[in-house]
Amino acid sequence: MAEERARSFAPLDGEVDRFLRTPLGAALREEGPEGDVAVSSRVRLARNLREFPFPTAMRPRDAQAVLTRVESALAAFPDAAQYVRIRMGEIPPFARGILVEKHLISPLLAENPAGAVIVRQDEAVSLMVNEEDHLRLQTFAAGLALQEAYREADHVDDLLAAHLDIAFDPRYGFLTACPTNVGTGMRASVMLHLPALALTRTLGQVVEAVQKVGLVVRGIYGEGTEAEGNLYQVSNQVTLGLSEGELLENLLGIARQVIEQERRARDVLLREDRVALEDRIYRSYGILTSARRISTREAMERISDVLLGVHLGLVQGIPSRALRELWVMIRPNFLQYTFGESLGPAERDERRAVLIRRHLKEAMARG
Amino acid sequence: MAEERARSFAPLDGEVDRFLRTPLGAALREEGPEGDVAVSSRVRLARNLREFPFPTAMRPRDAQAVLTRVESALAAFPDAAQYVRIRMGEIPPFARGILVEKHLISPLLAENPAGAVIVRQDEAVSLMVNEEDHLRLQTFAAGLALQEAYREADHVDDLLAAHLDIAFDPRYGFLTACPTNVGTGMRASVMLHLPALALTRTLGQVVEAVQKVGLVVRGIYGEGTEAEGNLYQVSNQVTLGLSEGELLENLLGIARQVIEQERRARDVLLREDRVALEDRIYRSYGILTSARRISTREAMERISDVLLGVHLGLVQGIPSRALRELWVMIRPNFLQYTFGESLGPAERDERRAVLIRRHLKEAMARG
Repeated sequence: MAEERARSFAPLDGEVDRFLRTPLGAALREEGPEGDVAVSSRVRLARNLREFPFPTAMRPRDAQAVLTRVESALAAFPDAAQYVRIRMGEIPPFARGILVEKHLISPLLAENPAGAVIVRQDEAVSLMVNEEDHLRLQTFAAGLALQEAYREADHVDDLLAAHLDIAFDPRYGFLTACPTNVGTGMRASVMLHLPALALTRTLGQVVEAVQKVGLVVRGIYGEGTEAEGNLYQVSNQVTLGLSEGELLENLLGIARQVIEQERRARDVLLREDRVALEDRIYRSYGILTSARRISTREAMERISDVLLGVHLGLVQGIPSRALRELWVMIRPNFLQYTFGESLGPAERDERRAVLIRRHLKEAMARG
Repeated sequence: MAEERARSFAPLDGEVDRFLRTPLGAALREEGPEGDVAVSSRVRLARNLREFPFPTAMRPRDAQAVLTRVESALAAFPDAAQYVRIRMGEIPPFARGILVEKHLISPLLAENPAGAVIVRQDEAVSLMVNEEDHLRLQTFAAGLALQEAYREADHVDDLLAAHLDIAFDPRYGFLTACPTNVGTGMRASVMLHLPALALTRTLGQVVEAVQKVGLVVRGIYGEGTEAEGNLYQVSNQVTLGLSEGELLENLLGIARQVIEQERRARDVLLREDRVALEDRIYRSYGILTSARRISTREAMERISDVLLGVHLGLVQGIPSRALRELWVMIRPNFLQYTFGESLGPAERDERRAVLIRRHLKEAMARG
């Protein structure tokens, strides 16, 4: 029984295993532009193949055919060897969970055995197959880098379009399963770390202002998830009637304003009671490096405090990467895979504390 | 102005300065018997000179005469050179405050300019002059060592009696200013560290049982003070009708029972949720070594947690002495003298955090 329990988190095959054990792909390891506030930028394009019904209506055989088409389109990519194919039906639930925790796939895709994801080694490009649409192409870039992420998405989109018959209407644009995606089929988002707006209790106002201009603010895991660790995704809602360039410019402008507001709030905290801020940050550091039991929620809060300290120059010797890696490493599936066994919630809280202490110690030893 | 402010905590003369800067005298540095729970034992004898009115009723000239008599009695001690004389009227208020924080004098004595204290270098013997009684002889010993403390007190009492005419009534015993001290004039007490009884919420019961047999339970600074850091003084109330030996045996027996109850409570904590206990202890350790602002009350709680960890073998590398020294070092007067300047409450909270971090770091570096 204990053996079987352990086996459920047994190591997978080489190529997939590597993804599952790496908290941050090469594309997100270093900080990007405005990296003190902007964690990452993402562009997602929804595409469908003209000759098949949308995934909601298609038969298993269609799903298989879509996947085969996409895989052969990919085979023609000049950098095809850089991609790893992972079929949902072929990996255990925890492995799908880790891909969700890493933001490489959506929870919806994880639940579809006919779904697959094709990920570039550096994790800058992820192509979900048979999610809500036949194709959901996602690109990621560190910091505030929407244009870069879009260029990459556009490039991969061209490569796909060269080999696939994409459903496109001259009047409406790209056709998608959900009408909210019709048009450009694009959703762009920026992940922002906003601890000072939260601490100064001005976050509510900022979110309201952002929503008034038609953007959406969500928690770390997107739609319907709560904010944890003061991480917020700001994304466009409208996909129709504006060009990709206009959508990106709009989001970029708003993101820049929010980033400035966060920086001003940080200045206020430093000016009004620098010691109180340092105390908060260092207590969180002390707890992360000492606690023997910690929940995901508390860990996210403490990591947020210390990351703020790093960005304000109040904490030295901890690379921001180590903290950003922890965001993924402390999640249930990643955590259990790290320890190679199934763990109940209480055990997870203990192992999470072990993992955080170990990771920070190693990161500080490396300098 | 700033200079004057600093000067108020300027260093005093050599011999007195040494007392003021040493948190624990040699007599209390190492742990004594039952040192995992029993911090220290104290015996106090109240004595008065027959030819003078009690301090409450005497004129300044009498006070001066009492002091002169005591000082000449002391001069005849075989180890007279081991004693330091400190007159309250000759040292600044903060210095008197430190002597109170070190338990060498009472707050009452600190307020009397005609009062004095004569302390042995190892701080095992302290003789207050012109407190509530003409003489209040105190002896201290590490751990549960009431007999040893009493032997020392009895010895010094004999030396004093050889040169002073002590008020003694064949029927009532030693005469004292307050009737509750008449008889032996003795009060014996044990300082106990009872964190597990507090955590398991059984302390109330234990205190009640102790009070039922005629003993008194008080906080760290005696009468009318609250318990801080789970430190409790257990002492005898009755001084009349029982011999010194009977009083000591009685207190010793009860103290042993309380110590056993504390140990059992520690076992319960370890058995029921060891990780929860470790987590509490290590979080406190993390906060002590990281916080940038900490109140006396919180510091006392955190020190208590870590000391418990040391005594349970859960924390290595921190000598218990370093933690027991902090009990004194974090007090307002000691703290301000350490930093050589007058500090407001908020500044003290910051410096206290600095001092704790520094002291623990140094203690851990020494091993």
